[in-house]
Amino acid sequence: MENNIIQKLIDEKKYFEIRKYLNDLNIVEVSELLNQFESSELIMIFRLLSKNRAADVFSYLDSEHQEMIIKTMTDVETKNIFDELYFDDIVDIIEEMPSNVVKKILKNTDAKDRHTINLLLKYPDNSAGSIMTTEYMDLKKDMTASSAIFKIRDVMEDMANVYTCYVIDEGRRLEGVISLKELITSKDDEPIQDIMNKNVISVHVNDDQEKVAEIIKKYNLIVLPVTDDENRLLGIITIDDVMDVVEQEATEDFHRMAGISPVEESYLKTSAFTMARQRISWLIVLMISATFTGRIISKYEDVLQSVVILSSFIPMLMDTGGNAGAQSSTIVVRALALGEVDTKDTFKILKKEFLISFIVAVVLAAINFLRIITLTKTPLNVAMTVSVTLIFVVIISKIIGAFLPVIAKTFKMDPAIMAGPLITTILDALTLTIYFRFATMFLSNVIK
Amino acid sequence: MENNIIQKLIDEKKYFEIRKYLNDLNIVEVSELLNQFESSELIMIFRLLSKNRAADVFSYLDSEHQEMIIKTMTDVETKNIFDELYFDDIVDIIEEMPSNVVKKILKNTDAKDRHTINLLLKYPDNSAGSIMTTEYMDLKKDMTASSAIFKIRDVMEDMANVYTCYVIDEGRRLEGVISLKELITSKDDEPIQDIMNKNVISVHVNDDQEKVAEIIKKYNLIVLPVTDDENRLLGIITIDDVMDVVEQEATEDFHRMAGISPVEESYLKTSAFTMARQRISWLIVLMISATFTGRIISKYEDVLQSVVILSSFIPMLMDTGGNAGAQSSTIVVRALALGEVDTKDTFKILKKEFLISFIVAVVLAAINFLRIITLTKTPLNVAMTVSVTLIFVVIISKIIGAFLPVIAKTFKMDPAIMAGPLITTILDALTLTIYFRFATMFLSNVIK
Repeated sequence: MENNIIQKLIDEKKYFEIRKYLNDLNIVEVSELLNQFESSELIMIFRLLSKNRAADVFSYLDSEHQEMIIKTMTDVETKNIFDELYFDDIVDIIEEMPSNVVKKILKNTDAKDRHTINLLLKYPDNSAGSIMTTEYMDLKKDMTASSAIFKIRDVMEDMANVYTCYVIDEGRRLEGVISLKELITSKDDEPIQDIMNKNVISVHVNDDQEKVAEIIKKYNLIVLPVTDDENRLLGIITIDDVMDVVEQEATEDFHRMAGISPVEESYLKTSAFTMARQRISWLIVLMISATFTGRIISKYEDVLQSVVILSSFIPMLMDTGGNAGAQSSTIVVRALALGEVDTKDTFKILKKEFLISFIVAVVLAAINFLRIITLTKTPLNVAMTVSVTLIFVVIISKIIGAFLPVIAKTFKMDPAIMAGPLITTILDALTLTIYFRFATMFLSNVIK
Repeated sequence: MENNIIQKLIDEKKYFEIRKYLNDLNIVEVSELLNQFESSELIMIFRLLSKNRAADVFSYLDSEHQEMIIKTMTDVETKNIFDELYFDDIVDIIEEMPSNVVKKILKNTDAKDRHTINLLLKYPDNSAGSIMTTEYMDLKKDMTASSAIFKIRDVMEDMANVYTCYVIDEGRRLEGVISLKELITSKDDEPIQDIMNKNVISVHVNDDQEKVAEIIKKYNLIVLPVTDDENRLLGIITIDDVMDVVEQEATEDFHRMAGISPVEESYLKTSAFTMARQRISWLIVLMISATFTGRIISKYEDVLQSVVILSSFIPMLMDTGGNAGAQSSTIVVRALALGEVDTKDTFKILKKEFLISFIVAVVLAAINFLRIITLTKTPLNVAMTVSVTLIFVVIISKIIGAFLPVIAKTFKMDPAIMAGPLITTILDALTLTIYFRFATMFLSNVIK
């Protein structure tokens, strides 16, 4: 829609109108629009943006479009844009660019900024340091409320967040926090140290981003300060970045639970070949594991030959066991991810899953037994064998399904790996073993 | 740990020290501590809190602890607390309380507030209205920047967010938005209408909370205004509430994909009986569906009798098909949830999945074929049958796995329902049908 309007205006060379049209749009909408254009037209439209909007729009563009723009921009233009961007955005952009573009970006940055960028780039992936930015508002405790507000007014344009200010000493050590709201309602000559909150919640620069998300959620924060070993303030993390973390972590769990290696790019942007690679390793592992399940069937071939009808219950038993186990593992993986339970709750979890599985197993077995004897001509002893197997399979599946993620967490592995296909494969083998054991026990008289 | 300290102080009747200890803690930490005490001690500690902290602490308590406190509080105490709470929190609390407690709460609220509460309670679950609050900062466009700041200072104590102010006309229709940052940096006599942003992003009160989350994320907002059909401002939604929505929606998808009905409470708080109920319905449906898969095996009993070894490949084929399909459905469900793809991308998705599945299928079949002929004594024609089946099964599973969620979305159903166990059951039946068809085709000479 919108790109048609712009295309028409380009064709008619009505540049003034394009400019006017773009100025009425929200920055995010302008970037969405630009993402639909290619090279030369993209640059043309981008140059029509007012200077103060250009950097904002730029930060929302796809990395390939950002690359095209940087490549065609002059050094001065590049500098103008990167001077306006926050450091966390610059770092995100740099991480996506080829080395010649990175060089051009760094060449057009002040030595001091370049130092900050290099520092931020060094923090390990998924650490607090890797998602923080350094444009925080700092105050000194001997300032008065009015002098603080004066300082804030002066520098607020460059700050990522001015509504939460941090009080630091001469060594940049974090001493307190105060909101702009508190400053505005304080008396003009009130010293900051009397109104600031000394109990500051912060994270260490090496803390995992999952911990950052947990703390932001737990304390209902909009901004969280990041400090080093000496409690020196290094940066801040804002809640919108944490929202990305929360979604990213959930996506990782979804993918792991389906046996897919972590995917960085979005679906449509990842090539089919890359995607195939991300999916195939687990499929190979699981395919080979499943052949062991097949061996169990081969081993009991004589049982199946004697009581042929037994084989028709195999899919039902395998599926029900797998599903029962997947339910428990999913519930536990998610509860662990949300912090609702922890490894110290292992006993409580197992007790609860045992109770749940007992209720579920008995109901399922009853329904199954009734269905078999009323709707099919299956002999009673076979119906019994299948139903008793079902009870054991459901209970064992649920306990194992709940236990494996907790075990994984105890050994500092990702619990999500223990849910989904891996558990199904393990449970398949278990189910068949239980089934054939019971069959040989209960049906010994008919088995040759 | 902390509750031991408090318990000791209680036993020693050192109330002043408890008070001092609690005052040094963060509000969230105080509420965590209180959640560990029961009735009489809980009330005792809660009464030691300073008046301005009591309401905040109260809003973070478990609903059962909130209930205990309300039940023992006097009318005046109840009123003091509820006067301090934001309406969205009051509504959340009321929804969890038994009717006698709700009566007590409403009795101790002003007629005007009661009206607002009743209005908020009426919005459907998961709508923007159900998560918004009404304590927003509104301004008029003919105010000057300094008179606006004056008004803000005056009422900010009661506002959920004062950093984003909304400009409304006499009919409360939304005309613009302006941040406190912009107000502070403006000239004192600058009229609001000259500095406000007229392009306000808002949601309708009946919009789904998922849409709210999408918009907050897309436009990087901290606060989002909620309006009615006439564009009248009704309330605001803050990003911390949206974070809960994002997690809740992801949890729902996790549970649906494992065949579990939505669970409202956290894991340890839900009874085993409730949990069993939430899990059993899908297990029954899937157990019965799986019997159809069993019938396919019965139908081809003669084939299995003739070439007994065929049965040992059944688990591997079923599992691989299921896993391949689950990968695709999970990827597509998550991409749909994150807005990376939409139903209009159906063709692109199917094309991509076809390519991926082709690569994956060929590699898996090759590995499988080599494994069978080198490690087992399986006849060549059986190895061929299994491998060709594998190729078809993987391709079809991936295409169906990707297609069903998109179809669900097209018909306004939750795509997550189409992933997980349901798809596995469908694919199991398909896999066996394909397998036996190929077996009868390729092995006709050996089948009696």
